[in-house]
Amino acid sequence: MASSNLQTQLLYPDLESALETGDLEALQELCNTLAAEDLAEMVERLEPRAQAIFFEQVPEDKATEIFELLEINLQKDILNAISNQRVAAIINEMDPDDRTALLESLPQNATRQLLSFLKPRERKQALRLLDFPKDSIGRLMTPDFLAIKQEWTVERVLDFIRRNGEDKETLNDIYVVDDKGRLIDEIGIREFLLSPLDRVTLDIMDRQFTSLPAHHPQEEAIQAFKKYSSRTALPVTDEEGYLLGIVTIDDILHLAEKETTEDIHKLGGVGALEEPYLDAPLMHMVKKRGGWLVVLFVGEMLTATAMSFFEKEISRAVVLALFIPLIISSGGNAGSQAASLIIRAIALGEVRFQDWWTVMRREIFVGLILGCVLGLIGLLRITIFSAFFDTYGAHWFLIALTVYFSLIGVVAWGTLIGSLFPILLKRLGADPAASSAPFVATFIDVTGIVIYFNIALLLLHGKLL
Amino acid sequence: MASSNLQTQLLYPDLESALETGDLEALQELCNTLAAEDLAEMVERLEPRAQAIFFEQVPEDKATEIFELLEINLQKDILNAISNQRVAAIINEMDPDDRTALLESLPQNATRQLLSFLKPRERKQALRLLDFPKDSIGRLMTPDFLAIKQEWTVERVLDFIRRNGEDKETLNDIYVVDDKGRLIDEIGIREFLLSPLDRVTLDIMDRQFTSLPAHHPQEEAIQAFKKYSSRTALPVTDEEGYLLGIVTIDDILHLAEKETTEDIHKLGGVGALEEPYLDAPLMHMVKKRGGWLVVLFVGEMLTATAMSFFEKEISRAVVLALFIPLIISSGGNAGSQAASLIIRAIALGEVRFQDWWTVMRREIFVGLILGCVLGLIGLLRITIFSAFFDTYGAHWFLIALTVYFSLIGVVAWGTLIGSLFPILLKRLGADPAASSAPFVATFIDVTGIVIYFNIALLLLHGKLL
Repeated sequence: MASSNLQTQLLYPDLESALETGDLEALQELCNTLAAEDLAEMVERLEPRAQAIFFEQVPEDKATEIFELLEINLQKDILNAISNQRVAAIINEMDPDDRTALLESLPQNATRQLLSFLKPRERKQALRLLDFPKDSIGRLMTPDFLAIKQEWTVERVLDFIRRNGEDKETLNDIYVVDDKGRLIDEIGIREFLLSPLDRVTLDIMDRQFTSLPAHHPQEEAIQAFKKYSSRTALPVTDEEGYLLGIVTIDDILHLAEKETTEDIHKLGGVGALEEPYLDAPLMHMVKKRGGWLVVLFVGEMLTATAMSFFEKEISRAVVLALFIPLIISSGGNAGSQAASLIIRAIALGEVRFQDWWTVMRREIFVGLILGCVLGLIGLLRITIFSAFFDTYGAHWFLIALTVYFSLIGVVAWGTLIGSLFPILLKRLGADPAASSAPFVATFIDVTGIVIYFNIALLLLHGKLL
Repeated sequence: MASSNLQTQLLYPDLESALETGDLEALQELCNTLAAEDLAEMVERLEPRAQAIFFEQVPEDKATEIFELLEINLQKDILNAISNQRVAAIINEMDPDDRTALLESLPQNATRQLLSFLKPRERKQALRLLDFPKDSIGRLMTPDFLAIKQEWTVERVLDFIRRNGEDKETLNDIYVVDDKGRLIDEIGIREFLLSPLDRVTLDIMDRQFTSLPAHHPQEEAIQAFKKYSSRTALPVTDEEGYLLGIVTIDDILHLAEKETTEDIHKLGGVGALEEPYLDAPLMHMVKKRGGWLVVLFVGEMLTATAMSFFEKEISRAVVLALFIPLIISSGGNAGSQAASLIIRAIALGEVRFQDWWTVMRREIFVGLILGCVLGLIGLLRITIFSAFFDTYGAHWFLIALTVYFSLIGVVAWGTLIGSLFPILLKRLGADPAASSAPFVATFIDVTGIVIYFNIALLLLHGKLL
């Protein structure tokens, strides 16, 4: 219906009471009125007990359709709460790709138990899919596709679809295979819908197709769907070109979203969480965050070491200490900016390793300008302040100059490190997002102190120092 | 073909030389062998002059198909480089949604010129689409869809598609409208393909459909496609329910990617760049980054002010200054972590305003544990160091305790601020991602100094201070 969000909100109490009172007719009625996606959204909000009743009582095919839309953690909870008979019905009905995602996330004995519930044909299929390496395209695959021969007429193809299409996840694409089952073309359903019924498939074919190798990493599938952005499914083949299955866009979108979340978490200096924030167990979160925090802390301890080298200078000119946080954090901020820009540009394929030289020139230029701007503001601030107060003493102008040049140096340095470090990581085969903003900032804190005190020594020697 | 990336790399030199020598036959041959997406990728790499030749020489329909796949900035450059006649041909052939995206990005006089190249029917359509507010769903729409009546048989529908489907962007969904043109159902092509030819549409209908209101913000369309993740197109209606057009998933994916980029840039404390990193003019980048950097810098100047209040303490116990960067940056790091987690969770709809209480309890707990861990490491570090060196003087244990308690306080405080600030921003209607990690870190730097020196005063009073 027109505004489905409003509708799910209005009908949610009905669903709750139907489950509470065991009113099967009302439940059936709700299932007929609402789309599976809306029902899934409502089910997520239910109490665990009501969720279990829902999946026990709703017709099997509808139950499976809704079940497939839930987060895997919720799927697990529900399987534990409903009867074995229902579990068997649901996992036998599930789309093979969604089933693989569930099975691979379970502990081994639970996987074994679920496999024992499957009918022989489904079990064989599930085992075959689980046989592909973790994070390979094969694991995303559904083997239910429509394959035709090139000598068939359009009429025969449409007839074939009508008789065999029922259990296929998508009918948007039809695959042409040779006598041995090797993929020779993929044709959008559009072509068959628009061609005269007596035309032969061979005359429609253009032999232009993109297939995904089953053993390759899932990342490649994401890239392929991004490139062929109007495609909703892509075929998967083995090394010899035999058609094994298809990957559909809904799974890819889910995967791409997970990867973006990982990138953002890493950028913030957190090991990527797998669960939604509110579902993550507290101690799990402490571990994920604590690990990186300790690494950063140990790195940051070098600031204390660096500063202890300049303890004598600080005791002679305490005023120097006042500007340390300002200077090092400006370098850190400039570095975080550069790192975020470059990490995202790498993720989008806009910047590659061979661009490092261009990036470096750009960032030195940008860093120097930004440093000059911040430096000038700092210089003005100290100058104006000194007109009214005596905080900075007689040598205030030398101190202002020290701050000015230090800011230029530290900001330019931060910008350079922040931009080049992700590129270097990418080159080394690591994840560029691991060069998180906090990581870059920590590095710049330590080096910034050294830059600052050296400039101070140069300018203030014989005066304050 | 199987590995299209390899193929584009192999054929790229052929394309270059075909354009250089004006070998139209070779060019034609390449266009026939390669998918539009592959050709678009190759065109992006060509020199501007070669790009212009390409779009002059390739057949009009292929040229348009490839043109539509390019970034808008490149589209503009190409329009400026080719003959008016070609410009007219391409923009008349373009899909209406892609055309709107191009037109709305041009300066007014350029838009007017392009509109004058359009045929009357196309011009009317383009003007109608541009009439929708910027960033509304109407601007994403293509008015080319297939609408049928409920009394038609499956055979008639398939026949209708065959005769009218040619210029439609997608045939995956068919829309049922009443006599006045109001949307009453949407049916996947699948249903028509699987039903007997003599069945009447009315018998297939379930009247379950989701439509997007044309005047609503595009963000809503992104959310809808995320929810109905197996859908490749959704219908757009006006307030009275009249079917105006459809939005297809490729435009949505493009849009969603842009929003993620914005989020990541904001997290890094950069105003979102519209262009790819390497295409952004340098001064434009300086402005986008400089603005935020100056704001952060001005905020960070408060650290110098805060420290000047404790100048007397620092001069008495210079050793205290050594740990300032360590302590405040640990708070900043903990805050960045929390902010990244919460900002992403809000973007995914996992955390809402009403969850603030849950988030707060969780984060205080996590923050205290993390603070204790870092505090202990700090304590140990100073203790061990003091066994070998005299850097920290006679009162080293009191200093160690100061560092220990300060870390607990600052890390817990940082965690709390980092997690609650994005929620607050969201509540105020602002973008949570604007509470970027650098922003949170700056706030914590200033407050962290105050926490640290107050603890020091408490513990070291009468000893060092």
